[in-house]
Amino acid sequence: MIDITLLGTGGMMPLPYRSLTSLMIRYNGKSLLIDTGEATQISIRRRGWSFNPIDVILITHFHADHISGLPGMLLAMGNADRTEPVTIIGPVGLEKVVRGLLVIAPRLPFRVDCIELKENDEWFNAIGLKCHAFKLDHSMPCYGFSMSLERAGRFNPEAASKMEIPLQFWRRLQQGETVTDGDKTYTPDMVMGSARKGLKLTYVTDTRPIDSIIEAARGSDLFICEGMYGEADGDEKARDKKHMTMYDAARLAKAAEVRELWLTHYSPSMVNPFEFSDAVKAIFPDAHICKDRRSITLNFEDEENESGEDKQ
Amino acid sequence: MIDITLLGTGGMMPLPYRSLTSLMIRYNGKSLLIDTGEATQISIRRRGWSFNPIDVILITHFHADHISGLPGMLLAMGNADRTEPVTIIGPVGLEKVVRGLLVIAPRLPFRVDCIELKENDEWFNAIGLKCHAFKLDHSMPCYGFSMSLERAGRFNPEAASKMEIPLQFWRRLQQGETVTDGDKTYTPDMVMGSARKGLKLTYVTDTRPIDSIIEAARGSDLFICEGMYGEADGDEKARDKKHMTMYDAARLAKAAEVRELWLTHYSPSMVNPFEFSDAVKAIFPDAHICKDRRSITLNFEDEENESGEDKQ
Repeated sequence: MIDITLLGTGGMMPLPYRSLTSLMIRYNGKSLLIDTGEATQISIRRRGWSFNPIDVILITHFHADHISGLPGMLLAMGNADRTEPVTIIGPVGLEKVVRGLLVIAPRLPFRVDCIELKENDEWFNAIGLKCHAFKLDHSMPCYGFSMSLERAGRFNPEAASKMEIPLQFWRRLQQGETVTDGDKTYTPDMVMGSARKGLKLTYVTDTRPIDSIIEAARGSDLFICEGMYGEADGDEKARDKKHMTMYDAARLAKAAEVRELWLTHYSPSMVNPFEFSDAVKAIFPDAHICKDRRSITLNFEDEENESGEDKQ
Repeated sequence: MIDITLLGTGGMMPLPYRSLTSLMIRYNGKSLLIDTGEATQISIRRRGWSFNPIDVILITHFHADHISGLPGMLLAMGNADRTEPVTIIGPVGLEKVVRGLLVIAPRLPFRVDCIELKENDEWFNAIGLKCHAFKLDHSMPCYGFSMSLERAGRFNPEAASKMEIPLQFWRRLQQGETVTDGDKTYTPDMVMGSARKGLKLTYVTDTRPIDSIIEAARGSDLFICEGMYGEADGDEKARDKKHMTMYDAARLAKAAEVRELWLTHYSPSMVNPFEFSDAVKAIFPDAHICKDRRSITLNFEDEENESGEDKQ
């Protein structure tokens, strides 16, 4: 239902075998990208996903490893024959940063609209998903994002028949519409069960492990979170550089009661992030140290999830 | 003597297995880079060369595939503890483009000096090499570059002894200095043979195959040149987009009497550039269709060149 691929798992600088952290989401024929550091476009090509349907690009913050690939990304989208406007959403100052970078991509075949996030919490719709942007605690203004897909209750055809609601109105009621037919008014709640569990995805880099992340991520099916450090002196480095350790992320995942945690944004000095796996799982068992292009399709709970990692 | 590595061979956009065209040169402990498209820093890491000693970055022109990696490159140089100033040299407008891109790298641990090329031909010194920048014919102002290392004649100790030049002056004369000792004046030509053949490297992308390239590249030991198209209808595309075909490049190499031609900057639509190798060699036998990170060490003619290709 929602296709997700973690395009990279590196922080700070792209490495030959570790792309910069970035997320791509496909839903209902449209795509959304979170961050686009240098060479993110190469990872998209490796994954085999299309540039054309990227309607929205969310930018967590303006450190180069999260945005330096923007000119190339927009040019790649232009080369993929995109002509519809593209919306870029990020912290205050976005317009200035985007216009600066576009000095080398002055003519794109589509309009670029920038929306700046000003409040600590903002809600908006992107590619049909309900998005929540929430302020993090980094060395410059930075946001995390939750994306939710709500799910209506089940339609009850017996109830609709019993109330003698004409068949032609059933579909509109299922879609949440209130229908008036002469002196009769039918409301969705007459034929729909209570809302079912939807889907929720939360993405958090780069930040200290603040409490507000727990509330924002609460109940997520998938929580993707930075785990920049794993080694013994990681706590100090993390405090110093306004990042967090893998264990901070695992504690947030536990407190937020998420279903699954994916760790990403490893320090370039971390040669083998997998060595910390057991220690992380001791805090939160459903934690995964990710490789580039780890992917999953999130389905509603009575459907089955499929996940897999890039074999390259 | 001069280490050269062609960091990438792609034009227009970086591909998973083809980096954007860029050249790195090491001479006498210093490095020079020509162009820095998206992900050039990854290719440098693959090659295993250092970011710290890059004193000069030459920019051919401002199309994104030749400069989009600049912020990441400068940050990588900063992370490699560089503190000495970096000089960037490119067409008029360079300062504006660099300042635009540096909106995401506002604090670097070194000064960045921009020098704009205004004339059709300009000469300057970079990392101890004599550089010639020459205007090309592309869809925006674009320069090619020749880099030369001159070589003095051989010192003649018999002549110096015969003229009773004191031993203490020999070294200064060898270095080209005129020495005065009381009423005697010794000039280098008294003890040095005529200048020997030096080394010359010429780099040309993106352009139509204009005659001035022949003069600029004349006698190069290595001529690195774009060969964007090789297929039957390549001529038309090349004219249309202000590029050249592999055959244009081979004809320039022949006319300029260069020793060796390396082709690069392949169109993303060219899946296998090697299929055109025989046709190119029919025009200029010492032509090479390059892979990323093809490397060579150019030595003076009585030494031996070593070349090799990256095995990755």
